[in-house]
Amino acid sequence: MRIPFDEIYGVIKEKLIQHGVGEEVASGCARNLVENTQYGVASHGVNRFPRLIEMLKNGSVQPNAKPTLVQAMGALEQWDGNRGMGNTNATLAMNRAVTLAKKHGIGCVALRHTNHWQRAGAYGAQAAMASCIGICWTNTMPNMPAWGARDRHIGNNPLVFCIPYKDDYVMIDGAMSQYSYGAIDAAILTGRELPVPGGFDERGNITQDPAEIKKTWRVLPIGFWKGSGFSILLDMIATSLSGGMSVADIGKQGSTPTDEYNLSQVFIAIHIADKATNDEMVSQIIADIKSSESAEANAEILYPYEKELAHYRESLKLGIPVDENVWQAVQAL
Amino acid sequence: MRIPFDEIYGVIKEKLIQHGVGEEVASGCARNLVENTQYGVASHGVNRFPRLIEMLKNGSVQPNAKPTLVQAMGALEQWDGNRGMGNTNATLAMNRAVTLAKKHGIGCVALRHTNHWQRAGAYGAQAAMASCIGICWTNTMPNMPAWGARDRHIGNNPLVFCIPYKDDYVMIDGAMSQYSYGAIDAAILTGRELPVPGGFDERGNITQDPAEIKKTWRVLPIGFWKGSGFSILLDMIATSLSGGMSVADIGKQGSTPTDEYNLSQVFIAIHIADKATNDEMVSQIIADIKSSESAEANAEILYPYEKELAHYRESLKLGIPVDENVWQAVQAL
Repeated sequence: MRIPFDEIYGVIKEKLIQHGVGEEVASGCARNLVENTQYGVASHGVNRFPRLIEMLKNGSVQPNAKPTLVQAMGALEQWDGNRGMGNTNATLAMNRAVTLAKKHGIGCVALRHTNHWQRAGAYGAQAAMASCIGICWTNTMPNMPAWGARDRHIGNNPLVFCIPYKDDYVMIDGAMSQYSYGAIDAAILTGRELPVPGGFDERGNITQDPAEIKKTWRVLPIGFWKGSGFSILLDMIATSLSGGMSVADIGKQGSTPTDEYNLSQVFIAIHIADKATNDEMVSQIIADIKSSESAEANAEILYPYEKELAHYRESLKLGIPVDENVWQAVQAL
Repeated sequence: MRIPFDEIYGVIKEKLIQHGVGEEVASGCARNLVENTQYGVASHGVNRFPRLIEMLKNGSVQPNAKPTLVQAMGALEQWDGNRGMGNTNATLAMNRAVTLAKKHGIGCVALRHTNHWQRAGAYGAQAAMASCIGICWTNTMPNMPAWGARDRHIGNNPLVFCIPYKDDYVMIDGAMSQYSYGAIDAAILTGRELPVPGGFDERGNITQDPAEIKKTWRVLPIGFWKGSGFSILLDMIATSLSGGMSVADIGKQGSTPTDEYNLSQVFIAIHIADKATNDEMVSQIIADIKSSESAEANAEILYPYEKELAHYRESLKLGIPVDENVWQAVQAL
């Protein structure tokens, strides 16, 4: 089913307020969740809302906590999220990084004790809309084995690079795991193989069979040993700069899937002084990539986030696609 | 064979001077090439020296050009490498980023019209030795197809994250391709399959057979579509911030393997104010990763760059391993 923005926004905001969230955070949080769904990332939008309500109920997310400044060092700041709402905390942090970038050329905010920021790309896009390059990442609960290991000690730590382009942007928003748990579960439901290898089976062989991967949860990092290394460094840098919790610390807090709280995040903004020249350079790179010979007949080569931006524009016109069961569950919360 | 540092350094520096390079750049360049070999990255050390001499001869590398400041915007600067020596240009750029970071907390230098920087990790390590986190990347000639494409329009654009740790650092230095051309050629010589998929065969299937990949040079990005996206964003950001050439522009300059010049690079340094706390946090993350259950009997889980740092220490004691044929070729230049 397709539902207009205002209708979903209204319901989600109302539910948040019913669960103790103040007006301002409820507005920002609801807007982010609906927009994420508009970009085709319902997994970090409407679909995730029941889990957020659960975290409000069990105290993982503090409904009225606001981020506070810990330390300022020129263009670099350390903030404490005080376990407040993850997406509005992250919006505040990137907003602050953009302010620093407008003053110093580049700005960096490290945020500790925060919560799941939902769609990582939201904060890259936020920087781009303010004429800045956005680079940001978060750590997560331990959900992937380090390269060579069987059990999960590292995070999939999503990483974003985003550059303004005309009225929009080009962006990569990618976790350090090849597939999310959600994608593996979804493939099991459809009974299909994963398009590329996603993890190990019980005999230690790399496999595309999602049901075999679910038996071990030994999921693959992107680029095998390389993604394992990137994941570890992203965690170390986020932990050190924020003075917060590492992936290992986060894992020690609890053991249920809703115990992913007290995350550490980094937000970097770099100001684009000459937007027209930037757009021309990005435009030329896009044109060159699109001039590639396609490997499949009649398939256009897309630039990063082109598909999500098209999904957004379609949703603006036709309403936002929402799963009927999810929408019933949200309304019943 | 193993050769002491001073002997290799002396020969390389002398050869550079013979080819018109001034004393200061020759010292810095030689030091970098020997150190890269010491870390076990001979492919970007002694082994690459004949190609560097060729680029000096054909004018791609200007032996006496120095980088010049184009624009300063607080903690963000734009420099022109004037087609000078790639590794000494990059050292100067990261040095400047570190200086900016010590003043502003974070600093960023974008460098255009520069040349191959050899081992990407050298500049991450340089930041770490100055108590800074180092993040840097370079673009390259077009050497990889975008996801879904057959022909090569994107670069493998090596990306580095490095964090200080005690007297050393933890670092990931990874190109956005799963394997370098050198690694694929080496696998063909040994007649062995690649350990994980590295590219496509002529029928468009993903393969681990290096000889089949060599027929198409359709190499795989790390994480398949994800690495393609990261590669494109790294190129766009480096091109826009430096005002220099994109991967596409670099490809249009020429067609031989030595025509990789006029590169664009980004250097970010973030100052670690409290080194002791940083080291303690990194140490705890390392301990947690090492507590993983290994997938192979008696195999220790290594942290990123642990192997290269061990190689370095061994080389300090025993001399630097150099291929005998390479060493003869270098001496004959």
